[in-house]
Amino acid sequence: MGQSVQPILVVGSVALDTVHTPTESAMDVLGGGASYFCLAGAMFAPIQLVAVVGDDFPEANRRMLEARGVDLTGLEARPGKTFRWSAKYWGIRLEQRETLDTQLNVFADFHPVLPPAFRKTKMVFLSNIQPDLQLEVLDQVENPEFVACDTIKLWLDTAKPGLERVFRRVDCVIINDEEAVQFTGQRFLPAAAHVILSYGPRVVIIKRGENGSLLFTPDRIFLAPAHPLETVRDPTGAGDAFAGGLLGSLARSGHDGEQVLRRGMLYGSVLGSLAVEDFSVRRIVQATDDDVESRLSTLVDMISLDGSRAR
Amino acid sequence: MGQSVQPILVVGSVALDTVHTPTESAMDVLGGGASYFCLAGAMFAPIQLVAVVGDDFPEANRRMLEARGVDLTGLEARPGKTFRWSAKYWGIRLEQRETLDTQLNVFADFHPVLPPAFRKTKMVFLSNIQPDLQLEVLDQVENPEFVACDTIKLWLDTAKPGLERVFRRVDCVIINDEEAVQFTGQRFLPAAAHVILSYGPRVVIIKRGENGSLLFTPDRIFLAPAHPLETVRDPTGAGDAFAGGLLGSLARSGHDGEQVLRRGMLYGSVLGSLAVEDFSVRRIVQATDDDVESRLSTLVDMISLDGSRAR
Repeated sequence: MGQSVQPILVVGSVALDTVHTPTESAMDVLGGGASYFCLAGAMFAPIQLVAVVGDDFPEANRRMLEARGVDLTGLEARPGKTFRWSAKYWGIRLEQRETLDTQLNVFADFHPVLPPAFRKTKMVFLSNIQPDLQLEVLDQVENPEFVACDTIKLWLDTAKPGLERVFRRVDCVIINDEEAVQFTGQRFLPAAAHVILSYGPRVVIIKRGENGSLLFTPDRIFLAPAHPLETVRDPTGAGDAFAGGLLGSLARSGHDGEQVLRRGMLYGSVLGSLAVEDFSVRRIVQATDDDVESRLSTLVDMISLDGSRAR
Repeated sequence: MGQSVQPILVVGSVALDTVHTPTESAMDVLGGGASYFCLAGAMFAPIQLVAVVGDDFPEANRRMLEARGVDLTGLEARPGKTFRWSAKYWGIRLEQRETLDTQLNVFADFHPVLPPAFRKTKMVFLSNIQPDLQLEVLDQVENPEFVACDTIKLWLDTAKPGLERVFRRVDCVIINDEEAVQFTGQRFLPAAAHVILSYGPRVVIIKRGENGSLLFTPDRIFLAPAHPLETVRDPTGAGDAFAGGLLGSLARSGHDGEQVLRRGMLYGSVLGSLAVEDFSVRRIVQATDDDVESRLSTLVDMISLDGSRAR
């Protein structure tokens, strides 16, 4: 990672997760959308984290994030407990999820305050927190050049007007297929994407899990395959890791132009595939640049019309 | 379509379908897997149909097939009623289906007999009929060069040993994702494809409906996007039309080599997308070569890493 790569500012949740699958469990492991984004994105670019944790947040997690190039100046530590989330997964590929418990704890009163050095950052990722908090962050960034946001069904159900305000102020909306259909009332994804594009973003990305992701710009569609899975140990965080890989690669290569966006989608798929292979962020932090490039080559070959292997 | 394109022999069902959606119905329209395959494939190559109908089979259907270059020498007409199938679809994109009635009628005692001229045909499609009937056809073909088969869940449940015999004798297995998982007991599609490849075919194609199709050869994977849908009027026959587009394009371009297979997958997606836009085979028979090539260009662009539009 060169010194010249521009940093990415991310706001979102840092949590301690407890995850159960039919065969395994992990207790109080590092979770939260911002954590996955940070560690995926940090493979490509310096990351500036804006989040809150309690006084129970393990020092080891903090050190691990810093060791990966994540700037924790904006990680507020408050008296009380860190955001806790617990869920169980089941189904043939662990595609079914039930949230067992959510304790907002210190996150309940979170109002993000950007350290001065973060306010000039040009690339921003608003992970799937409450839309009003996403807007609070955006209001503090002086002159952003590329802002992407994600969301979850909860905000479609409870904060749609806020979400619409966010969509009007970002360059890129990342959303999953069911949410895109629900938000727009359109049955088909191209029509749904075009409704979201009409709010103003120049890019809409619709995630479909193991069926890959679609990149919509006003007159083109790109299909990024999901990396072929051989195992799923914990599906948590795949979407946030996808966003980290995507924005990280854009920070490194520039966010203008269809070509870097398309290649960025593939980096997103790679980091998403790593996320699910172990609990928490374990597989992501173990990945080498060679691991990433090897998976990228597989994806490039999966969409090549060339008869010879494109490696 | 040049005279030099080699013919494709197809065996399968020709039926009269009654289809209900929440807003529309169609009664006694041309259906059956072989019908969809014939009319999709006939856009690329001469088709030889082996099937059975009753004495109630409308002459108009026969004329329409012949007008499209389908050789009906092998279409047996028997006293009695044509195979009838009835179903209803529902769900946001009509993805839910319930079969209401199946009357095998003359199909119940069908034993395909190939006209002498068909026995030398090099390219063969065994659509999703009973595996023993697929084998009866294969036994009558003298020296096939490329044989593809499809199947349905019913045969996994009731005729798995026969299906395994079929898989051992074909070059290409076409199957949907749930069937591939069920047949192999493998949760992940690459592992499932490799189990099927171990029976002997050199190509395994796993269909995922609106999520596209995957082409597996021993050491590569290709992802063919589904053509972006703007409407679904009747999902019946999409898989058979996919096979018709795929094999048709292979008949025209040669079935050797990864490049023609990959492009063939895209032609399959194009014909599958046409099939669902109207009841029965209506949209397929209305399609022009320009319609097909235009949709193909969309698909090529959807998987292009080039920043400029690849048209």
